[in-house]
Amino acid sequence: MNGKFIVVEGLEGAGKSSVISRIVDELKSAGKTVEQTREPGGTPMAEAIRDCVKHDWDEQVAEETELLLMYAARVQLLTNRIHPALKKGYWVVGDRHDLSSQAYQGGGRGVLESTMRSVSEIALKGFKPHLTVYLDVEPAVGLERARGRGELDRIEQSGLAFFERTREKYLALAKSDDSIVTIDAMQPMEKVHSAVSALIKQYVMGK
Amino acid sequence: MNGKFIVVEGLEGAGKSSVISRIVDELKSAGKTVEQTREPGGTPMAEAIRDCVKHDWDEQVAEETELLLMYAARVQLLTNRIHPALKKGYWVVGDRHDLSSQAYQGGGRGVLESTMRSVSEIALKGFKPHLTVYLDVEPAVGLERARGRGELDRIEQSGLAFFERTREKYLALAKSDDSIVTIDAMQPMEKVHSAVSALIKQYVMGK
Repeated sequence: MNGKFIVVEGLEGAGKSSVISRIVDELKSAGKTVEQTREPGGTPMAEAIRDCVKHDWDEQVAEETELLLMYAARVQLLTNRIHPALKKGYWVVGDRHDLSSQAYQGGGRGVLESTMRSVSEIALKGFKPHLTVYLDVEPAVGLERARGRGELDRIEQSGLAFFERTREKYLALAKSDDSIVTIDAMQPMEKVHSAVSALIKQYVMGK
Repeated sequence: MNGKFIVVEGLEGAGKSSVISRIVDELKSAGKTVEQTREPGGTPMAEAIRDCVKHDWDEQVAEETELLLMYAARVQLLTNRIHPALKKGYWVVGDRHDLSSQAYQGGGRGVLESTMRSVSEIALKGFKPHLTVYLDVEPAVGLERARGRGELDRIEQSGLAFFERTREKYLALAKSDDSIVTIDAMQPMEKVHSAVSALIKQYVMGK
């Protein structure tokens, strides 16, 4: 029996890390073997690509470069970890996946939809997560939380308007896809966690 | 007045480096300002991507990963060096460019033509070199020369059949494109250099 791939998505400071811990706990309680991934990254080569894309280069980083690197890292993770884990029947919990590229590069940077579709098709060949939990937060609030944790990387240093466009794209994509569940991450963390736990319990029962 | 982009292509051991020196000398004698590039690489970020793609990773490197990384590096080089140099009227001499991806990934690895076209279009938006000098050499001869220079990298360690397919693709692409000139690099280096010098002199005179 194949495993399931559950992804947590959202802007910086949406609370992804603690939600991921909660999901992993729920799955383990349900007797599942769980693997965790983060994107970009998750294999030695993909982590090297992550360093490359996050680094604050003293040269213009073209939006196509950023896009191609994100998908290069994604293919490595899929090939070497996600696909093998699912085949073994493990449940994989991902910190970001394709929806991040759609939202950040497609929405935030304004990369053409036709370009996004082409690259996604080349890299993923139609593969998609079984369930995505999108933690919705206002950019100003999320960034304030993220700043509290320390320095922001190259992409996180983009202006507020960039994150507004990214959030809009997240919301639009969530609306159009039944496998994406939006949770209001402006609520107190306890309420967010309750909502997530209920969702995962229900999802596991249905499988 | 815009400059020109001249690219030297060929398998490992075809003699690209010495031909490039010869071309640069010819162009300087003709009063041109010359910039040199190599691919993948040529900017700090593109060189980091080069390290990533050439490294001998202890994991499966998917052919799509290799392809996306090559093009990510190419976009950085185009954006930060080739386009700006051509705008200033400089002549750019490149050690490899898009034809290498077409030959190695498209021919050698057998990546689908539709995939090659999509990625190339996303990254280059129709840009192509003004003149390409393809140095044709039998793989066994080229690899023997390359081995004499020291260790081979991850891609250069692919088997002989890989390089046979790569050469076939090079030859087919050269046949179908008037801007690619094939020079027999099995000849003594002196003859290769004479042919290249004559070609460049004629090309510069025609501009």
